[in-house]
Amino acid sequence: MNKNSSNIMALAPNTSNKRETVCIFGTGDFGRALGQKMIQSGYPIVFGSRSPQTSNLIPKEAEVLSHTEAAQKAAIIIIAIQRQHYDFLTPLAEILRGKVLVDVSNNLKINQYPESNAEYLAQLVPGAKVVKAFNTVSAWALQSGTLDASRQVFVCGDDMEAKQMVMDIVRALGLTPLDQGSLLAAQEIENYPLQLFPMWKFPIFLSLGLTAFFFFYCLIRDVIYSYVYENKDYSFFIAISIPNRICPVVALILLALVYLPGVLAAIIQLYRGTKYSRFPDWLDKWMLCRKQLGLVALAFAFLHVFYTLIIPIRYYVRWRTEDGIISKALNNKTDPFNNTNGWLSDSYLALGILGFFFFVLLGITSLPSVSNSVNWREFRFVQSKLGYLTLILCTAHTLVYGGNRFLSPSSYRWYLPNAYMLSLIIPFIVLILKFVLIFPCLDRQLTQIRQGWERNPQYSE
Amino acid sequence: MNKNSSNIMALAPNTSNKRETVCIFGTGDFGRALGQKMIQSGYPIVFGSRSPQTSNLIPKEAEVLSHTEAAQKAAIIIIAIQRQHYDFLTPLAEILRGKVLVDVSNNLKINQYPESNAEYLAQLVPGAKVVKAFNTVSAWALQSGTLDASRQVFVCGDDMEAKQMVMDIVRALGLTPLDQGSLLAAQEIENYPLQLFPMWKFPIFLSLGLTAFFFFYCLIRDVIYSYVYENKDYSFFIAISIPNRICPVVALILLALVYLPGVLAAIIQLYRGTKYSRFPDWLDKWMLCRKQLGLVALAFAFLHVFYTLIIPIRYYVRWRTEDGIISKALNNKTDPFNNTNGWLSDSYLALGILGFFFFVLLGITSLPSVSNSVNWREFRFVQSKLGYLTLILCTAHTLVYGGNRFLSPSSYRWYLPNAYMLSLIIPFIVLILKFVLIFPCLDRQLTQIRQGWERNPQYSE
Amino acid sequence: MNKNSSNIMALAPNTSNKRETVCIFGTGDFGRALGQKMIQSGYPIVFGSRSPQTSNLIPKEAEVLSHTEAAQKAAIIIIAIQRQHYDFLTPLAEILRGKVLVDVSNNLKINQYPESNAEYLAQLVPGAKVVKAFNTVSAWALQSGTLDASRQVFVCGDDMEAKQMVMDIVRALGLTPLDQGSLLAAQEIENYPLQLFPMWKFPIFLSLGLTAFFFFYCLIRDVIYSYVYENKDYSFFIAISIPNRICPVVALILLALVYLPGVLAAIIQLYRGTKYSRFPDWLDKWMLCRKQLGLVALAFAFLHVFYTLIIPIRYYVRWRTEDGIISKALNNKTDPFNNTNGWLSDSYLALGILGFFFFVLLGITSLPSVSNSVNWREFRFVQSKLGYLTLILCTAHTLVYGGNRFLSPSSYRWYLPNAYMLSLIIPFIVLILKFVLIFPCLDRQLTQIRQGWERNPQYSE
Ligand SMILES: Cc1cc2nc3c(=O)[nH]c(=O)nc-3n(C[C@H](O)[C@H](O)[C@H](O)COP(=O)(O)OP(=O)(O)OC[C@H]3O[C@@H](n4cnc5c(N)ncnc54)[C@H](O)[C@@H]3O)c2cc1C
Ligand SMILES: Cc1cc2nc3c(=O)[nH]c(=O)nc-3n(C[C@H](O)[C@H](O)[C@H](O)COP(=O)(O)OP(=O)(O)OC[C@H]3O[C@@H](n4cnc5c(N)ncnc54)[C@H](O)[C@@H]3O)c2cc1C
Ligand SMILES: Cc1cc2nc3c(=O)[nH]c(=O)nc-3n(C[C@H](O)[C@H](O)[C@H](O)COP(=O)(O)OP(=O)(O)OC[C@H]3O[C@@H](n4cnc5c(N)ncnc54)[C@H](O)[C@@H]3O)c2cc1C
Repeated sequence: MNKNSSNIMALAPNTSNKRETVCIFGTGDFGRALGQKMIQSGYPIVFGSRSPQTSNLIPKEAEVLSHTEAAQKAAIIIIAIQRQHYDFLTPLAEILRGKVLVDVSNNLKINQYPESNAEYLAQLVPGAKVVKAFNTVSAWALQSGTLDASRQVFVCGDDMEAKQMVMDIVRALGLTPLDQGSLLAAQEIENYPLQLFPMWKFPIFLSLGLTAFFFFYCLIRDVIYSYVYENKDYSFFIAISIPNRICPVVALILLALVYLPGVLAAIIQLYRGTKYSRFPDWLDKWMLCRKQLGLVALAFAFLHVFYTLIIPIRYYVRWRTEDGIISKALNNKTDPFNNTNGWLSDSYLALGILGFFFFVLLGITSLPSVSNSVNWREFRFVQSKLGYLTLILCTAHTLVYGGNRFLSPSSYRWYLPNAYMLSLIIPFIVLILKFVLIFPCLDRQLTQIRQGWERNPQYSE
Repeated sequence: MNKNSSNIMALAPNTSNKRETVCIFGTGDFGRALGQKMIQSGYPIVFGSRSPQTSNLIPKEAEVLSHTEAAQKAAIIIIAIQRQHYDFLTPLAEILRGKVLVDVSNNLKINQYPESNAEYLAQLVPGAKVVKAFNTVSAWALQSGTLDASRQVFVCGDDMEAKQMVMDIVRALGLTPLDQGSLLAAQEIENYPLQLFPMWKFPIFLSLGLTAFFFFYCLIRDVIYSYVYENKDYSFFIAISIPNRICPVVALILLALVYLPGVLAAIIQLYRGTKYSRFPDWLDKWMLCRKQLGLVALAFAFLHVFYTLIIPIRYYVRWRTEDGIISKALNNKTDPFNNTNGWLSDSYLALGILGFFFFVLLGITSLPSVSNSVNWREFRFVQSKLGYLTLILCTAHTLVYGGNRFLSPSSYRWYLPNAYMLSLIIPFIVLILKFVLIFPCLDRQLTQIRQGWERNPQYSE
Repeated sequence: MNKNSSNIMALAPNTSNKRETVCIFGTGDFGRALGQKMIQSGYPIVFGSRSPQTSNLIPKEAEVLSHTEAAQKAAIIIIAIQRQHYDFLTPLAEILRGKVLVDVSNNLKINQYPESNAEYLAQLVPGAKVVKAFNTVSAWALQSGTLDASRQVFVCGDDMEAKQMVMDIVRALGLTPLDQGSLLAAQEIENYPLQLFPMWKFPIFLSLGLTAFFFFYCLIRDVIYSYVYENKDYSFFIAISIPNRICPVVALILLALVYLPGVLAAIIQLYRGTKYSRFPDWLDKWMLCRKQLGLVALAFAFLHVFYTLIIPIRYYVRWRTEDGIISKALNNKTDPFNNTNGWLSDSYLALGILGFFFFVLLGITSLPSVSNSVNWREFRFVQSKLGYLTLILCTAHTLVYGGNRFLSPSSYRWYLPNAYMLSLIIPFIVLILKFVLIFPCLDRQLTQIRQGWERNPQYSE
């Protein structure tokens, strides 16, 4: 119904109970798009323009006047002009006194100017009430009605009433206003549309780094070693065999890194005896990107699952199976069934499937609409309890997969252990630390600290 | 918490600060259900009825009076009566003057009457302020508290204040009001509950058409041909082998059709030198259903993945493998490992897995709650950049799957090429056109045009 | 943007148009966290404390006074104190007269006290307007800005205006207020944060019970029987083979149990000739947890799919295949291809894949953000029509899987039929009853009843 809802909007006829006139300075792309949309929602619009000759791009229902004339007709003026041209407003200061000026501008770079555009505007026209809004909305989205990305309009400003007026307009356009506080917030609001997944940067770079490392690691162990010692060309391992070693390893490491900061935080809190002193900066940042870390881990686990499932379809695997069977048949030799191998093989697969199941469950509960409909106890039950269960299952999956190969010297080529052995280090650390932390004596103290208790309460003088 | 939230609602005791009385005309199913719900939210309710004998279906807390008496007790009157009976309101016109009339009616067919029910009501009772609302809510949902489908209530009307009063009631009932503008919007609002996935019609019919075509195409090539020339009965291919040819082919074609309109739009914009003249109607419609096209493509890709993964479990495949191995063993003949085949087989599988991964990512970001929490830059990065990456990966997957079979004459049965060859045509067109469009000279001009620049700006006289 | 939005919040400078002062009683963890957050949103805060010496944990911007002094400074007082200490408010009754008291407290157990904390507060301070709010928000979430779980704040109270004031604060903090009616709702609101998936309890316990039953059932048939009669150790079947028998069986039974209550409800309605008498309690509860039942069924289906897909990778399966081929090769004996088996094997796989596809579709449409963007007709089309299609496909999948084994005596070990045979009973009952109910004569009457028609309408005297 997203698409439709904007189409349903009908032009308002002349009703007795009209909305208030709104003035838009600037007849550029964004000004026109916003004007068009506001007209559809029943607002009389007047454009203020340097050259008030009516372009046929401007909606017919709108008036186009000089800046001065237009400003006099409305209590709210939307400044749809680039920051560089704001100085033309200085001579208009008298007319703009007491009016609500809405700054909709964006910059080209993050933190391009020392102060935000909205604060600059407030300095230029000190008598006006400046409100920042609409900068996250795209002109094209307004025109085409395809508002699939964010319908949230961040609003900030120092004047409560002015902000309220702007938020009413936002709501009337079918968008969701979000009050972000005073005009100081404008800087962050102006940076927002320039961001490209800022919280995802660290998890993605980390996972790419790990991927690169393990790629070369496995290349050396599996391809180059075989080439050097056995003179066999296994270069085609690059397509599936090696990715299917990298993916589970990176997924497990990332999953452990999701739960490591929580353990470190607990240790720091226990050591300091209070929860009120700030964590070191790196820990704070790490804790804030755990969701993203977890979802990247899930992506790698997803790839691992599908890489594994297509194994029997691979030409190489089919050839090897066939070859093995034929040579056994020719040698008239059959292996007896090995019960231990039956157990090992089935257990590591079962553990993997269960681990993946809970992994997906964690992913589903992190969808905004799902996490929004559970309470805190439920959210923490899934994310913390089931999260640790996932970590345990995935670690056990890797351990059992290794089986009795850990000690076999053939696993160490050029003294390099198998990649999956390396991947077990961090999960083990996390699980051991967590195991220590749930000892009653430590757990009780931690709970107290998190409820606000302090070992050495400090009062200021 | 959805379920609960309606149960939490408690009956309002007699408080000093009561809500305003609301009158409901009509004691049918919907009127009663709405009345019950409003009583729970603290509104005193009075029903207006032809025969004001209290049925025990009517909530005890409500009064039942004649229409005239009931109307006098409230400023808001909800007309829960079918359109055919609206004429009984004409004699009441004087009493209804200045009141807010809420039209909640629906029709049985889309565009059943020339004007909407709400507009018809406004004509019948010209002195009243008519507001359309509540028609998307189901009586059963109100009664049973299972409000899983839309909690959105579309509201429209010519009088701002009346609309505001109705929207306050909507909010008090725990539903979400959406202002749709003037009463002209009523027609679309009345059509809405009668719609069954209107945006999905074209993508679904298109995909069914393609499915039918490729079904017969493959039937001829794979079943009938074998039957005619080799006298073998492969009819059981209908269950899996043929669907697993159709699904990838349809998925790839639909995916390409998602990105074709964007390319065509760019060409039209470049040719016209402006973004302000409307696209032809078919292109407009096509562009608006790209999301649905993409999701249908994802469904076919999903089926393809699972049809492929169960290949080794099929009795036919197991029999064929076994048969092949035994005959080789008996003939004492083994194939040497073919490195090229190893590469080809592993690459097309790897490309397919990566393509599916990004496909699923596109699908996840199109969930409303996810797309709502990313900004425009991020949404377009995923949908446009990663979307093209998906198209490239899936096209390459198909190409490599074909491998060196393209030129082999055995692929052409009855001069019909393999289905996957046909599926490559549209993706190739899209990718070549896109490749041309990202040449700097064209790209720069296109960017300017999309920012509002015009090659031949036109001013009206 | 969740994370960011709380960071964007900037401190409000001294503006002419300030928000109203709010008083907080209690300087504990929650009081401080809430105070900090409100200061960030521009509210002047004054704390009321027994010992008004400023702790350095209290935000610097806030004043700390005695209870009496603090209460006089504000119209709204947030009581961030535990219920046991509420009696200190009795002497303050005069000062609190007419003020808005916000009860934010929670209990440790569900229904711990006969009346809710908020009602108790209202009894203690009869002159004040008590509003319940904020109890679902966690102090830690407020502090750390990680508001991933519910941002919904349930608000209730007897005074409309007081409730409105509190809801304005909630909105200003970036949270979503939900009006739950009068103060009677406080009991349920106080229970809410203590709940752990209440609607999920029955489905999960039911599925665990079924799992346990079928585990022992299969253990007897598949492991113990073989051990007793064939002296073979199949204990490793516990890891995959038995779970992969349990999962499909439980999934199918749960899926049928989703659609059984609807059929029973229809029969009851037809029998009674009205929809207005209440269903028996067990049926009501059952119908309310159908969504959860369905999703648990989907979880089991998901596990079944992955348990099945890894079959060819299992050591046991590979060994058995190899062994079979070698012995055939040595005996120089090959099976001819059996066309019926080809059909059966491919059909049950195809039916399973299609069933799983629609199952997943049902799951996706039950995501809150998806179900919220479809209308009722669409939601019921998917959930009811496609739901029955899923049930039919899954039942057929199980039937065809059984194939011609139903009658073979070897399927009955110790007179116990195969588990999948048992799983077919309930689906068959549901499908047969539904088939009877769609007969035109019954269907017509049912439709009338659901539109509010009654066979024996009853009027109260
Ligand atoms: C697939 C996947 C998806 C994920 N999605 C999400 C998501 O959507 N949202 C999300 O946040 N995480 C998500 N995560 C990350 C992770 O599951 C959560 O962060 C999880 O809550 C961490 O649990 P924990 O027990 O380690 O940490 P926590 O329980 O958060 O504890 C760690 C630290 O937090 C502090 N703390 C916690 N509770 C309190 C309290 N009551 N009072 C004071 N301090 C407290 C303490 O400093 C403590 O030491 C996801 C992970 C995965 C794998
Ligand atoms: C699984 C899947 C899920 C999908 N989900 C969604 C979804 O949820 N929502 C959705 O919309 N699509 C969805 N799609 C479809 C598709 O990914 C998007 O429509 C995508 O944005 C198309 O990219 P594009 O580069 O071809 O088109 P666009 O980048 O949209 O460009 C095409 C045309 O749009 C116009 N245009 C674009 N930007 C501007 C601008 N700034 N100014 C002026 N004109 C402009 C121009 O006319 C341009 O020629 C989905 C696809 C798949 C496969
Ligand atoms: C994976 C999965 C996910 C699911 N997700 C959801 C979900 O998100 N939400 C959900 O609700 N269910 C969900 N379900 C459960 C199920 O699909 C629905 O409850 C479905 O609507 C049941 O259909 P039905 O035809 O049996 O019942 P219904 O059509 O609901 O009919 C059953 C009874 O409801 C009453 N009734 C229905 N319509 C009316 C009416 N118009 N007037 C009067 N009485 C009426 C009657 O008493 C009728 O006998 C899910 C199931 C699965 C398998």
